[in-house]
Amino acid sequence: MKKGLMLVVSGPAGSGKGTVNAMLLEREDFAFSVSATTRAPRPGEVDGVNYHYITREEFLSRIDSGDMLEYTEYCGNFYGTPLREAEEVMQSGKNLILEIEVEGARNVKAKYPDAVLVLLLPPSYSEQEARLRGRGTETEDKILLRLARAKEEVALADCYDYVVYNFDGKARDAADQILSIVEAEKLSIRRNPDVAKNYLNA
Amino acid sequence: MKKGLMLVVSGPAGSGKGTVNAMLLEREDFAFSVSATTRAPRPGEVDGVNYHYITREEFLSRIDSGDMLEYTEYCGNFYGTPLREAEEVMQSGKNLILEIEVEGARNVKAKYPDAVLVLLLPPSYSEQEARLRGRGTETEDKILLRLARAKEEVALADCYDYVVYNFDGKARDAADQILSIVEAEKLSIRRNPDVAKNYLNA
Repeated sequence: MKKGLMLVVSGPAGSGKGTVNAMLLEREDFAFSVSATTRAPRPGEVDGVNYHYITREEFLSRIDSGDMLEYTEYCGNFYGTPLREAEEVMQSGKNLILEIEVEGARNVKAKYPDAVLVLLLPPSYSEQEARLRGRGTETEDKILLRLARAKEEVALADCYDYVVYNFDGKARDAADQILSIVEAEKLSIRRNPDVAKNYLNA
Repeated sequence: MKKGLMLVVSGPAGSGKGTVNAMLLEREDFAFSVSATTRAPRPGEVDGVNYHYITREEFLSRIDSGDMLEYTEYCGNFYGTPLREAEEVMQSGKNLILEIEVEGARNVKAKYPDAVLVLLLPPSYSEQEARLRGRGTETEDKILLRLARAKEEVALADCYDYVVYNFDGKARDAADQILSIVEAEKLSIRRNPDVAKNYLNA
């Protein structure tokens, strides 16, 4: 079985990355990996399903040993993607989706250069602003913060391999474009160094 | 309108590149360009449709001026792809398909680095041999020559960007994979250097 790809999908608030990734995950050949965290399970959460709940000591030791593809500290707790988990998913032939923010994406690429980085964007900044206000769930301060952050993130587009726009009501098109990216990457010569050998010996 | 891609499709005898390219050309967003030649038109051939028939002097002068993307001399006549023709097709928004052999493909890439090079292969050397013999139209000498040449061509796979296998009865799949390659290439950051600027100003 051919190993799956590592696919990092990032996008600013309002890009619709949750919707698009959910569409990809409906397919049998895509999977998330379960993150690790040092925070305590909430009622109803299951170890190995929602998160791998590990101690702070273990988390730090896994950072040291290079087993965290990327991680972040938030409100005093660590959250991260164990490389071991990621490898297991890909070895099973499934493409692994990592939904992480821009800084994390750059770290993944540094640790795992074969990762494919996709930046998902709303059609434009003004459209993004409209979407965030349209939700009506956030304060003006929070919206302005998210928009400022989006500008910073988009300025780092060069770190990505591909850019996909998520137009209103067209999340399926965005998901299809990501499928094309995965298919093309798997056909790239870079990922198929033994073309001539395989051809002659098959 | 977004400019089309230049897509070079090469493949050894028996790879089925004619069939696959014909499937792509059924689409409105793909086109061939008309080659130039110094040979005389045959009865029924139309200038500007089958070939652009030009004099030897003009052909040589277009090589000198850099207007031939690639060219070859065969039986005393020149055949080549004028860059001007190619540009016109791509400027119209269509993806240009160039069906040329490996040496020509390398020359195109050298002159036009944005070209996407796809190597189309039969599933294996032994399958290719079976296809060539199955045709029953060629002498044993010619078949051996074609097979020897295929080995040389496949050894140059590294010059290509992508490899696509054309399995028996699955030319449509191969064409679909090439469509995915074209779609992905158009989404690549390399081909979209102004993501951040466009995003903010749209």
